[in-house]
Amino acid sequence: MAAPIRVALVGAAGYTGAELLRLLHTHPAVVIEALYGRTTAGKSLAETLPSFAGVPMPSVQVLDAQAAARADFVFLAVPHGTAQTAAAALLAEGARVIDLSADHRFEDPAVYGAIYGTHAHPASLAHTVYGLPERNRTRIAAARLVGCAGCYPTSVILASGPALDAGLVEPEVIADCKSGVSGAGRDPGPGTHFPETSEGLHAYKTLAHRHAPEMSQALGGARVHFVPHLIPMNRGILATVYLRLKPGVTHDALRAIYEKAYKNEAFVTILPAGQHPDTRHVRGTNRCHIGLFGDEGSGLVVVQSVIDNLGKGAASQAIQCMNLMAGLPEDTGLKHTALFP
Amino acid sequence: MAAPIRVALVGAAGYTGAELLRLLHTHPAVVIEALYGRTTAGKSLAETLPSFAGVPMPSVQVLDAQAAARADFVFLAVPHGTAQTAAAALLAEGARVIDLSADHRFEDPAVYGAIYGTHAHPASLAHTVYGLPERNRTRIAAARLVGCAGCYPTSVILASGPALDAGLVEPEVIADCKSGVSGAGRDPGPGTHFPETSEGLHAYKTLAHRHAPEMSQALGGARVHFVPHLIPMNRGILATVYLRLKPGVTHDALRAIYEKAYKNEAFVTILPAGQHPDTRHVRGTNRCHIGLFGDEGSGLVVVQSVIDNLGKGAASQAIQCMNLMAGLPEDTGLKHTALFP
Amino acid sequence: MAAPIRVALVGAAGYTGAELLRLLHTHPAVVIEALYGRTTAGKSLAETLPSFAGVPMPSVQVLDAQAAARADFVFLAVPHGTAQTAAAALLAEGARVIDLSADHRFEDPAVYGAIYGTHAHPASLAHTVYGLPERNRTRIAAARLVGCAGCYPTSVILASGPALDAGLVEPEVIADCKSGVSGAGRDPGPGTHFPETSEGLHAYKTLAHRHAPEMSQALGGARVHFVPHLIPMNRGILATVYLRLKPGVTHDALRAIYEKAYKNEAFVTILPAGQHPDTRHVRGTNRCHIGLFGDEGSGLVVVQSVIDNLGKGAASQAIQCMNLMAGLPEDTGLKHTALFP
Amino acid sequence: MAAPIRVALVGAAGYTGAELLRLLHTHPAVVIEALYGRTTAGKSLAETLPSFAGVPMPSVQVLDAQAAARADFVFLAVPHGTAQTAAAALLAEGARVIDLSADHRFEDPAVYGAIYGTHAHPASLAHTVYGLPERNRTRIAAARLVGCAGCYPTSVILASGPALDAGLVEPEVIADCKSGVSGAGRDPGPGTHFPETSEGLHAYKTLAHRHAPEMSQALGGARVHFVPHLIPMNRGILATVYLRLKPGVTHDALRAIYEKAYKNEAFVTILPAGQHPDTRHVRGTNRCHIGLFGDEGSGLVVVQSVIDNLGKGAASQAIQCMNLMAGLPEDTGLKHTALFP
Repeated sequence: MAAPIRVALVGAAGYTGAELLRLLHTHPAVVIEALYGRTTAGKSLAETLPSFAGVPMPSVQVLDAQAAARADFVFLAVPHGTAQTAAAALLAEGARVIDLSADHRFEDPAVYGAIYGTHAHPASLAHTVYGLPERNRTRIAAARLVGCAGCYPTSVILASGPALDAGLVEPEVIADCKSGVSGAGRDPGPGTHFPETSEGLHAYKTLAHRHAPEMSQALGGARVHFVPHLIPMNRGILATVYLRLKPGVTHDALRAIYEKAYKNEAFVTILPAGQHPDTRHVRGTNRCHIGLFGDEGSGLVVVQSVIDNLGKGAASQAIQCMNLMAGLPEDTGLKHTALFP
Repeated sequence: MAAPIRVALVGAAGYTGAELLRLLHTHPAVVIEALYGRTTAGKSLAETLPSFAGVPMPSVQVLDAQAAARADFVFLAVPHGTAQTAAAALLAEGARVIDLSADHRFEDPAVYGAIYGTHAHPASLAHTVYGLPERNRTRIAAARLVGCAGCYPTSVILASGPALDAGLVEPEVIADCKSGVSGAGRDPGPGTHFPETSEGLHAYKTLAHRHAPEMSQALGGARVHFVPHLIPMNRGILATVYLRLKPGVTHDALRAIYEKAYKNEAFVTILPAGQHPDTRHVRGTNRCHIGLFGDEGSGLVVVQSVIDNLGKGAASQAIQCMNLMAGLPEDTGLKHTALFP
Repeated sequence: MAAPIRVALVGAAGYTGAELLRLLHTHPAVVIEALYGRTTAGKSLAETLPSFAGVPMPSVQVLDAQAAARADFVFLAVPHGTAQTAAAALLAEGARVIDLSADHRFEDPAVYGAIYGTHAHPASLAHTVYGLPERNRTRIAAARLVGCAGCYPTSVILASGPALDAGLVEPEVIADCKSGVSGAGRDPGPGTHFPETSEGLHAYKTLAHRHAPEMSQALGGARVHFVPHLIPMNRGILATVYLRLKPGVTHDALRAIYEKAYKNEAFVTILPAGQHPDTRHVRGTNRCHIGLFGDEGSGLVVVQSVIDNLGKGAASQAIQCMNLMAGLPEDTGLKHTALFP
Repeated sequence: MAAPIRVALVGAAGYTGAELLRLLHTHPAVVIEALYGRTTAGKSLAETLPSFAGVPMPSVQVLDAQAAARADFVFLAVPHGTAQTAAAALLAEGARVIDLSADHRFEDPAVYGAIYGTHAHPASLAHTVYGLPERNRTRIAAARLVGCAGCYPTSVILASGPALDAGLVEPEVIADCKSGVSGAGRDPGPGTHFPETSEGLHAYKTLAHRHAPEMSQALGGARVHFVPHLIPMNRGILATVYLRLKPGVTHDALRAIYEKAYKNEAFVTILPAGQHPDTRHVRGTNRCHIGLFGDEGSGLVVVQSVIDNLGKGAASQAIQCMNLMAGLPEDTGLKHTALFP
């Protein structure tokens, strides 16, 4: 057996960090070598994540870029803004970095700046690759720095990419997305307080969410109208995407394009006609289920995709990138099917 | 004080029946005179609805149209197909009937037939009035038979009606609706089994749901693309409606039309710009909150409306109709604000 | 009709305040005259409680005890510690005060102090009456100051009081209670963050919760072992109470005592043998359902009671007290049955 | 590497079957060779379990005992009553059988009969071993037939066993247990219909549940008062167990006994003093967390244990048994930490 891959994780306290640890802990080729955190430094992991009670793990330390860079890969599971500084320090030490924040999703500092504010380390962006393996696995394999795709963008890009790439639909996307609450992170606030989140439903940041330009960039500049909704569940994103067929294009032609696009993908499945994807069937996995629906006698197409926002939308996608970067089979440690029910 | 209004209810076992009873029980002008049911006949109400334990109520009997017609109003809270037969018998006895099923929502038997199958009592349809007071309260006040609007149609018609009526938008509606599970009724089935309904999300009957033609009829024939989703919560509908402004129409003009349309409505509130409606803020009420959102530099408009599917979408709307028919102030017994949280 | 009862509310932002407003708004004998709040002063009520959007209500002001005391009753829905100062000022102005916090539940300052810390206005305690009408309605009717019973204590006292009063059981109570999350209040925190509250379950403050001595005081000094649990739901408390019959006492004798104790109570119902109470059947109400269960051949008795923690456990119980103090029928404005489902 | 272990599964449609497949699919030493089902025979697995869409799996067939017995192990995930017939046929063919139903949990047919009705194959009971490895792993390793422990019994036995075994407490257990809804199985019914399960809580079968005698048998005949509650969540059991210390026994002595009992157990963790176990921290795992609490100055002890009812309470415990029977390290394929959140 080959030598194990040594990984370090920055940001052990949040949900994407927790999900990374869950998956890395059972990854057959990985050893977790170091955990870093700011507020949790000095604590045992189980104090922050009681799901690790009784499980031997490194204790959490303040980030030391030089030490961390001894690992084969460093995962950054920290908020955007914070990740760019850590990444720059790690790159300087020669590390290969997989960033789950938004800090390295745009190669052009100006585009990043327009959405998130000035980037403190624009030089890093020359090295970054957008981390969505189904779209650019070759570049990921060779990357020093990967900026993993956002959760909503992953769901919308996988749902609309094949149709747009093939020019079968107009370059305008209505993306009505529904997400579980873990997507909002682990910091409590009025909007994620249980009694104001359960047994109810609302949209937020209608047509004004930062993930829309990320989608547009990955979809060849298509106009994206994005409305996210908060659903009373922990995990899962359902993207209901509305597209308009170009004149003369049939639904059968569209379905054929999707089946071809994902035929060799381990994690993306086109469901049989008439079957609706459901977030519960991908919970805890790196999988994406897609359903295609047409309106009789109308050019409207509805594409529905489901992912786990912490899985294919974050942590397991990051590990899929790592597998590529390490030359491992892409599904190593990621073969899980959903925790159902 | 005027003599109380005597009401009878057919269908005490289901959720719309239960909600009618809850509201009629505290309605200041109403006496509940008789309860009818098929599977529950002979039982006390509390056996079917333990929420009435300790509350004096008539026991449930097999429907006797002649006896029922002695009430001032008879509510039908039974499945479509069943309601049409009961209604015909009650009308023959001179009763005024308020039907919560789909059986009397279409005045044209052919339209009904195309969606639900042959109507057994097409003559009734000559007497029916569509029960959505904000659209046709004058006709409701004089009606012998009211076919209350469906839950999804209520949410979509209130959200898109003013824009379509005023000709400010193209006559094509994308209605991405999200409903709580009580909308599926009280009969258990695989699709509403708790472990396959909680902690997950899916669409169903994409572009093929029977409520789409009902919406289209009430919206002057506009094309409606309707995708309903099942949300892990008990009550509430959020309709996220996508419309396209006609050239030259501004968002301000649109907002002005909505504010004018609902200025005198007791139950419909246009929220301030930027505020998102939330189903939890109308739970258990006859209220509808509407939010309006525009895309900078694009003709796309997003209108979001929330209702309680069992309230404004069914039971309290039926009582609103009854108040009109009885000459009472429209909000009598319906002043509730939401059970929050 | 008599002149309406004018009420003022201090603490419009929290859940008990919200529930009071919901119930007072439809109370047929009440006018809401003034709203007071600290963080919400200067705002419209709808900004804090969007469920009141479109509903005319007084705007929120900083508390002015002299002005507030012009109301017939002042409700305090503020945290313990804060309520005692407001109550003292209001009493000095001659107001009749109904306090929903823990500040006036103990007549002995030393007992209060041992649990909550030194009371700043011990003189108030000479005027206070414990607000649980089924136990002491006569004293409440005449009170100037009522300290409403806590949510958990209400459930446990109603469940075990008759057996202990009658001396049928040993004076030792195991109270395994389960509460919805609204009982933790409206301030967000890690323990009520949706992803760490939904889809899971835990006990807290095992054998160390402050409500245990309150229960013990109301139960004649019985030893109370109290373990509260946090349930992923918004509202409701189920108390599963374990008692030990004294030698020779039968289950039939026990049931007879409960039926006699609550025979004339509008809000407490003893369910038929074999039927389990369920929080959903009292949601949003002032009702309490009780089930009695015995172990064949053992002295163990299990009494289960359900209430709505914000209703009978807080807001509607406070209004029940107000009705008594105002000489109204006790169930005025409180006839609601549960919002079901 | 050793030859893989070939397994067959009877009952692919239910929740324990689904959980077995999820875990066996990623078990490093296992090959899933055959799937059997009655209602699902002839279908692909993905039709029954969409979480397996896109995952190659054997299709489901009608059980053929002779063919099934060619596997190294056959898992029975079918209802009690059905399992006993399948097991007898499989044993006759020489198979080693792991039964997740209640059919082989009692060695004495008379005990089984008193609870579940006459056993059709009492001869099988001579071969069976109770499947709770922490209690009897040596016998499991050698067994031809294992009757896996029930979900509630697993939680209560692990929580109270060490204290009872050591004679530190009286032989009487109050077990107030709370379970997620998946414990009720996959067949829909009124009691698991989403709107009557979410946002509410109730006990059921108080002091009359069939798992009580199973607990008592495993706990040396201790009297068990068992009250199960249905919690609005999918997975998880929290057992709150009340025990009475024998005179002179200290809480410290009790804690020492628990720590010793579970010191070498991979899946059972005693939490630090003051920390409450939470079902979410063991979701999807074979783990059990235990918290110990004492009442100052009283002999009452509260032990709280959490498991996943489908994991340690069913499927992963069955695989733990299989690992023992196959001579594998006990945690092979079971190292998972919780899916959190």
